[in-house]
Amino acid sequence: MKLGMVGLGKMGHNLVMNLLRHNHEVAAYDMNPEAVSRVAEHGAIPVASLEQLVATLEPPRIIWIMVPAGAALQSVISTLTPLLDANDIVIDGGNSHYKNSVELADQLAKSGIHFFDVGTSGGIEGAEQGGCFMIGGDEAVFRIIEPIFQDIAVKNGYMYTGNPGSGHFLKMVHNGIEYGMMQAIAEGFEVLDKSQYDYNYEDVAKVWSNGSVIRSWLMELIQDAFSKDPKLEGIRGVMQSSGEGKWTVETALELQASAPVIAMSLFMRYRSLEDDTFHGKVVAALRNEFGGHAVESSK
Amino acid sequence: MKLGMVGLGKMGHNLVMNLLRHNHEVAAYDMNPEAVSRVAEHGAIPVASLEQLVATLEPPRIIWIMVPAGAALQSVISTLTPLLDANDIVIDGGNSHYKNSVELADQLAKSGIHFFDVGTSGGIEGAEQGGCFMIGGDEAVFRIIEPIFQDIAVKNGYMYTGNPGSGHFLKMVHNGIEYGMMQAIAEGFEVLDKSQYDYNYEDVAKVWSNGSVIRSWLMELIQDAFSKDPKLEGIRGVMQSSGEGKWTVETALELQASAPVIAMSLFMRYRSLEDDTFHGKVVAALRNEFGGHAVESSK
Amino acid sequence: MKLGMVGLGKMGHNLVMNLLRHNHEVAAYDMNPEAVSRVAEHGAIPVASLEQLVATLEPPRIIWIMVPAGAALQSVISTLTPLLDANDIVIDGGNSHYKNSVELADQLAKSGIHFFDVGTSGGIEGAEQGGCFMIGGDEAVFRIIEPIFQDIAVKNGYMYTGNPGSGHFLKMVHNGIEYGMMQAIAEGFEVLDKSQYDYNYEDVAKVWSNGSVIRSWLMELIQDAFSKDPKLEGIRGVMQSSGEGKWTVETALELQASAPVIAMSLFMRYRSLEDDTFHGKVVAALRNEFGGHAVESSK
Amino acid sequence: MKLGMVGLGKMGHNLVMNLLRHNHEVAAYDMNPEAVSRVAEHGAIPVASLEQLVATLEPPRIIWIMVPAGAALQSVISTLTPLLDANDIVIDGGNSHYKNSVELADQLAKSGIHFFDVGTSGGIEGAEQGGCFMIGGDEAVFRIIEPIFQDIAVKNGYMYTGNPGSGHFLKMVHNGIEYGMMQAIAEGFEVLDKSQYDYNYEDVAKVWSNGSVIRSWLMELIQDAFSKDPKLEGIRGVMQSSGEGKWTVETALELQASAPVIAMSLFMRYRSLEDDTFHGKVVAALRNEFGGHAVESSK
Repeated sequence: MKLGMVGLGKMGHNLVMNLLRHNHEVAAYDMNPEAVSRVAEHGAIPVASLEQLVATLEPPRIIWIMVPAGAALQSVISTLTPLLDANDIVIDGGNSHYKNSVELADQLAKSGIHFFDVGTSGGIEGAEQGGCFMIGGDEAVFRIIEPIFQDIAVKNGYMYTGNPGSGHFLKMVHNGIEYGMMQAIAEGFEVLDKSQYDYNYEDVAKVWSNGSVIRSWLMELIQDAFSKDPKLEGIRGVMQSSGEGKWTVETALELQASAPVIAMSLFMRYRSLEDDTFHGKVVAALRNEFGGHAVESSK
Repeated sequence: MKLGMVGLGKMGHNLVMNLLRHNHEVAAYDMNPEAVSRVAEHGAIPVASLEQLVATLEPPRIIWIMVPAGAALQSVISTLTPLLDANDIVIDGGNSHYKNSVELADQLAKSGIHFFDVGTSGGIEGAEQGGCFMIGGDEAVFRIIEPIFQDIAVKNGYMYTGNPGSGHFLKMVHNGIEYGMMQAIAEGFEVLDKSQYDYNYEDVAKVWSNGSVIRSWLMELIQDAFSKDPKLEGIRGVMQSSGEGKWTVETALELQASAPVIAMSLFMRYRSLEDDTFHGKVVAALRNEFGGHAVESSK
Repeated sequence: MKLGMVGLGKMGHNLVMNLLRHNHEVAAYDMNPEAVSRVAEHGAIPVASLEQLVATLEPPRIIWIMVPAGAALQSVISTLTPLLDANDIVIDGGNSHYKNSVELADQLAKSGIHFFDVGTSGGIEGAEQGGCFMIGGDEAVFRIIEPIFQDIAVKNGYMYTGNPGSGHFLKMVHNGIEYGMMQAIAEGFEVLDKSQYDYNYEDVAKVWSNGSVIRSWLMELIQDAFSKDPKLEGIRGVMQSSGEGKWTVETALELQASAPVIAMSLFMRYRSLEDDTFHGKVVAALRNEFGGHAVESSK
Repeated sequence: MKLGMVGLGKMGHNLVMNLLRHNHEVAAYDMNPEAVSRVAEHGAIPVASLEQLVATLEPPRIIWIMVPAGAALQSVISTLTPLLDANDIVIDGGNSHYKNSVELADQLAKSGIHFFDVGTSGGIEGAEQGGCFMIGGDEAVFRIIEPIFQDIAVKNGYMYTGNPGSGHFLKMVHNGIEYGMMQAIAEGFEVLDKSQYDYNYEDVAKVWSNGSVIRSWLMELIQDAFSKDPKLEGIRGVMQSSGEGKWTVETALELQASAPVIAMSLFMRYRSLEDDTFHGKVVAALRNEFGGHAVESSK
């Protein structure tokens, strides 16, 4: 099929490569011309603006947007909307909040434009080699674009999830699970690291990746990481987060669902961003007040 | 090789089948004669007592014990010890506490008997088709029995872990991670289940098993479970536990390691064993005391 | 001083009694005429509508609103606004979200009306006998109404907290702490209740209320509760919540603050609302899949 | 009454001062002669050895031991036992594990010596001015020593708790609650500290100490702390712990009681002891592996 790609960062670039490998025609745009040139070398049609992108495609157009959620996405959508025709198809493949996807679907529906919110998993490697896609939007229209997903996903790696928002909702929960699984694995290695035993962590991750109950892609990935830095001595344990874990906890609160593991995963990430904490100061001060326990001076 | 197997429950039976398939000679014993007959039909040498088992094997003997940790294991070891010769090899493949393994190794060393603590993962399917084995004990002696593990493990699915206790310690931590991963997955589905969307959970588990960051054997297993009971309506959410998760948390406490996710996984299991809680009554009573909030009467 | 009170529920009623005892003139309104009659018997000026309330007071009027946060509050404010004059003073003493207070302050400022968000603690007893008040709004105007708080608060029991929203923000965090303290106390009694010892819980709460590090009003309240029902056998452990705990966790997420204890207090409340859980079903199903562990059938 | 005190640290010293003020005769011993001199100046009978202490008292002797739990306590008990007579009374007022108290009671019972495990709360101030005491041991013998507790406890501040071990068990759970309450308060101030508002924390603690639902001694203590250092800038948030919180969590695990708040309080303390964490490194490494997210280099 022929489609446009807006946004050629790590994920967008690799999706284009994936699409090209499967003989799709891709008109590619990015604010950064070098990013456009890089995919053009591999066969993508370079375009220099959203206007040109729209002009390059024939109705009904298919445009996949792969830009940061929030302001960047809104800006692209706002520019595109007046340029598009009814029955054109817009795909948001980024990490948008599902409520934003519901709003965008409603907004574009006023112009007769079909919107799909596509949660994308599998990392940057998956984007190129075959990823996992969770797709919300109109079911009948989905059947038109389904061949794209058949090609770029791994086998059984895409799912039509239902109404608009359901794709990004499912991706959000996926990431919540991911936070919990990562923290579980990380706590396990922390216990090993504080233990009396001197395990080779690469070997541990390797044996756990083969035949064990906890075998998983994340375990294979940490094996790779240990193969490069056996004790991760070069890495500081600062755990950033990009939003979906927080959204999952917020959603759990809204739905009155207990999600202690996902929440604790997130709080440990927040804790890791700080060298010292105010709550720690309060507890230390209290212990000093009632028990005369010495406090450490701040540096 | 020729070895003895003591304990022919779900795991022991399947290990014998795995060993026989790889052309090992297995003398098999269980307190239950029917369990012995079942493996004898597939080629195991049936023995009727631990004495007969020892008599059937030639020194240096290899005896794999696959009975419940604790009293059952201790009983088998106590009976076996005087029957064995120096340089015989005893393997504990059950879910023993690693401190118990350290003690057993010391105890058997007094008689010159070599002890291995083997943590076994992969479930009952893995025991038969190829599992994951974490093996603590003397390294030189390990090389003698290594061919067994080469056969019964999946590729790269066994690891010599070091001193006695290190095998069961690693298995314990593996199970701690398992608790956390399971709870993370479970919380994700709980959020889905309380959401406005109506996902087919089998399809969700399937798409997450293919190409996603959270692909894992556990995700494949829950796909199987949903294929049999799409909303798990027939299952009550009572989460039993068999010890290793608790030991992991206890070990984290000993080592002053933060393990919030593993601990919360365990506490949610304990919570699930109760229909009502005393802590809930206390909070409800307090809300009534200060705010006049109504309480529900107990049934 | 002379002021109006809108909303004569448990809290509003008791605040009026408190004000009357301190010789303030209170014009009292509630949608329920009986609630108005009850305070009129004690000397309040009964009014039958918001219009009459405004007519009864002289500019600059002081009107304290004690109705449920959200729609009820918004409705009262919307009706009152066109009736009021510049320099009139509106107090929201309910459990409003602080962001709503910021909005209301801005909205009323357009009409020159001063708004105060007053977080109220101390329970229904405190409302009548002397409570705790956290007051956000314009500082100069606050000095006008300060005598009210000097009378109705316990000694040192009120605080001017700063800009609009700061009163309800502080009350929100107060409630978050309250959730954590209540759950901590409750977990302690749960451990006692599962222990080998047979403590008299009223005595325990009593001794802990006298001289211990954990002495607190909550401990005194649970002593009262145990005096009425020694094992709380008549109470079901269903823990409702009214919003502020959830808001505190949401705010912690926004601010990237670690708040594991407050969050877990809330999640245990949510858990208590359910007889069975979907996450429990998932974990039970997984244990069955890999280990053949039996599941309990749902009832 | 006449009694002996062994151990004149912060707690023991203050208990002696408390006893002397109530006209008890106290023979006081400490390994440090200066500690003995200090209390002798206030009227205690100085003794230079455990032998002299025993000789100074008449049977049935009452000896209160206030030394660190574990080895120090065991050493004092071992030295004292052969010196004592049947019906002498030994009190352990330290923070011993309740299981140790059960053992000591059994051990001393063989010599006919009565043992009491006394959990002491109220901090160093309470030890002198009136504390809170939880007392396990033989009930009939307790009535003999009860007058001591009537004097040194605040009103209603002592409780006979039952069999040996029940005093320290109750104190252990008290401390578990204390951990949870402290962390709850601390998290609240952390949220304030990260908020857009600029509260005076001393004023906040003061208003919360007067009339609020969360009024408590801990809140008064943090008010004192803020009065000395308004933002606790001089204190590092390192949260040490002395054992009872950990024991409470271990006991919860044994009893299959859910104690998420107490457990998380403890884990945040452990976390605060580290500048960086291995679990953080693992999560950061994983994010880099699958998403190409940058890691921070360790310093």
